[in-house]
Amino acid sequence: MHEYTGYTGQSLQFLKSNEVAVGNSVKIIADLTFFGIIMPRYEHSDDKHIVLKLNSGYNVGLEIEKIKQVEKLTTVEKNIEENEKVEKNPNLPKILLLSTGGTIASKVDYRTGAVTPILTADELNSSVPELAEMANIDTQVLFSEYSENIIPDHWIEISNKLVEYSNSDYAGILIAHGTDTMHYTSSFLSFALAGFPIPIALVGSQRSSDRASSDAALNLIGATKFLVECKTKGIYVVMHNDESDETIACHLGTRVRKNHTSKRSAFKTVGENPAYLIFKEKILKNTTKDFFTSKEFNPKINLDSKVALVKYYPGYDPNLLEKIIEMGYRGIIFEGTGLGHVGKTMYDTVKKAQSKGIFLGMTSQCIDGRISMTVYESGRDLLDLGIIPLENMIPEVALVKAMWALGNLKETNDIKEIMLCNIASEIS
Amino acid sequence: MHEYTGYTGQSLQFLKSNEVAVGNSVKIIADLTFFGIIMPRYEHSDDKHIVLKLNSGYNVGLEIEKIKQVEKLTTVEKNIEENEKVEKNPNLPKILLLSTGGTIASKVDYRTGAVTPILTADELNSSVPELAEMANIDTQVLFSEYSENIIPDHWIEISNKLVEYSNSDYAGILIAHGTDTMHYTSSFLSFALAGFPIPIALVGSQRSSDRASSDAALNLIGATKFLVECKTKGIYVVMHNDESDETIACHLGTRVRKNHTSKRSAFKTVGENPAYLIFKEKILKNTTKDFFTSKEFNPKINLDSKVALVKYYPGYDPNLLEKIIEMGYRGIIFEGTGLGHVGKTMYDTVKKAQSKGIFLGMTSQCIDGRISMTVYESGRDLLDLGIIPLENMIPEVALVKAMWALGNLKETNDIKEIMLCNIASEIS
Repeated sequence: MHEYTGYTGQSLQFLKSNEVAVGNSVKIIADLTFFGIIMPRYEHSDDKHIVLKLNSGYNVGLEIEKIKQVEKLTTVEKNIEENEKVEKNPNLPKILLLSTGGTIASKVDYRTGAVTPILTADELNSSVPELAEMANIDTQVLFSEYSENIIPDHWIEISNKLVEYSNSDYAGILIAHGTDTMHYTSSFLSFALAGFPIPIALVGSQRSSDRASSDAALNLIGATKFLVECKTKGIYVVMHNDESDETIACHLGTRVRKNHTSKRSAFKTVGENPAYLIFKEKILKNTTKDFFTSKEFNPKINLDSKVALVKYYPGYDPNLLEKIIEMGYRGIIFEGTGLGHVGKTMYDTVKKAQSKGIFLGMTSQCIDGRISMTVYESGRDLLDLGIIPLENMIPEVALVKAMWALGNLKETNDIKEIMLCNIASEIS
Repeated sequence: MHEYTGYTGQSLQFLKSNEVAVGNSVKIIADLTFFGIIMPRYEHSDDKHIVLKLNSGYNVGLEIEKIKQVEKLTTVEKNIEENEKVEKNPNLPKILLLSTGGTIASKVDYRTGAVTPILTADELNSSVPELAEMANIDTQVLFSEYSENIIPDHWIEISNKLVEYSNSDYAGILIAHGTDTMHYTSSFLSFALAGFPIPIALVGSQRSSDRASSDAALNLIGATKFLVECKTKGIYVVMHNDESDETIACHLGTRVRKNHTSKRSAFKTVGENPAYLIFKEKILKNTTKDFFTSKEFNPKINLDSKVALVKYYPGYDPNLLEKIIEMGYRGIIFEGTGLGHVGKTMYDTVKKAQSKGIFLGMTSQCIDGRISMTVYESGRDLLDLGIIPLENMIPEVALVKAMWALGNLKETNDIKEIMLCNIASEIS
């Protein structure tokens, strides 16, 4: 990245004449006084502003014309202190913290102002001293990826690592994970590791740990408390419940969705309250059923990623579906409209997919509510074409489950059966 | 459809031996006594049950083994009474009701038990006598389609019809519409008819009018009251606000989504309260801005349906995107993760799409919240690849807007500009 990335014309001129560049810490006097780091801009930006990342973590655009003075500050790189080794307390339970990356394991890059994943699990552990009072936490970095870059291979890697600890003396396992696709990963783990003997909590943060509004510490503390005290099983996503710093929600890993781009309370259990709420010292249990229907732990870690999620919309060209068939896909999860419909322009191609033995499942783009394909003619027609109504499974969860089912089973009927069998509370 | 559709083995035998078939009204004595219509079943059903549509509108499956007696009732076809001509009151405002189909314009087919669209706008009007007390309602059937079968051509047909009434003496226009894709239609009308001089309310129902729990009448009454009293402009979706029969919500047509498959309060304004609430006699206004940014009515009714909505997920194969490019698509709306991301496995293909001059817009599968592509490296990379962050536009709305923009404009820069210009409150 160049020193002036994204700055052109007037704004480039302005930076140069003030002898500052992207990554510099500056004090800028305009209508107010600002302290922050000059951020790069993107290609299509205008040349009338410069962008500053304030110490609060927020970005502001400052109009060049209104800037009275720019002062370059001596850049003090934040030093990550050498980890003081946390002393183990033999009376406390043991927890394993696996780090996979994401904002929770990241800090702002003081050169570019961007958030990058560089903190290790060790650093996380020692930066939240409350954790050591609840548990002896061992840490391990599995990889370091933002979750938009996580692919099914990573799910397998995480699963294999977890299997190594299925017979350990850990009371539970924390997984630090980016929030973008945390719910896809939690779904896969729920199916692949059905019956896993100790609880697993995926925990993330929406704002990086060097920001005043960071949710990293509270989410980690809540998740650890949950693992240590709840004596349950299952795969949960543990995040802020609301915009306060008081309540943490534990969502079933197969019933949760990221429903807001930026709020700390972005994750919601679809159509229900979260399974557990942690409010200060109290843990409120809202779920009565066991997470896994099977008590036995019998990992099935294969998957076949040849499954497409097809969101139907008016004007959807059936030729797109045709291409999916031609590409040798083995499963298609429709995100249909309403109770589970696609337009009649799709019928011929759906029929073709069915004749090729492709698994066809129906979910709803409404997200909440149950599929019911017997109410309207359209639904009945689609049932006749062999589409399986997947109850109230969330589309993303149905996609992951189909990848998992196709990776572990061969017979069409077995796949249909397992898709409707409630493995890990994915149907409620 | 056959007389025994879906019945096989034991259940088929059972129907035959009791001399009843699909579509017959029956009284069945089992653990309880049931009155209803025998429904067809679908191909993959077991042969242990028969399905009955109760008079309440709900379906039940009855286990054959538990049935003690079956009695065929004389089928009384419900006659739709001849419309008594509603007398016009010259002191009331005039409203036009256009019918396009859907549950609100449907009734249960007493042969198959399925809900089919057969009521005309005239019949609707006379079946809700409250309407005549508020307005003189003229009715017109435009077509009769379930909304899962509505395609962009229908949007154009509706728009052209509405233009005919832009200079009329109507105080407002009601559009009876299926709920599955009502929000797609409301979006298109909002862009194509920006500045339309009188308010338009799309109204649907989640349960057909012959069911006890039908929301058809209340939604029609609420929408009519809204049109007559609010003296506003814009395209609204008017539906139940909650599960009571007391409050009706008027949603901005570009900020609304069907968020539940079956609830009467399925429609929600994303991230906000609805623009108006109608509570018994009161109308509460929650919106302060004008619906349209432009005051002038200058219809632009073209569209280009060569726009794909691409929902990204872990494992999404960039070759699928490749096919979209090969098929000559002119626009792609990404439904990315979180703040607006797709995995780095997609970058090369995105670059290729960009080099072909395809419009690339980013929305979020979180649905709620704003796109922000400057926070993380991934977002910045995608901005550099030419993806336009579409603020907090709902993915479905962004799709429709791109179809509309591409149908009415040629220059890439004009298209980019109009996509970020707030035409009809699609950005909030």
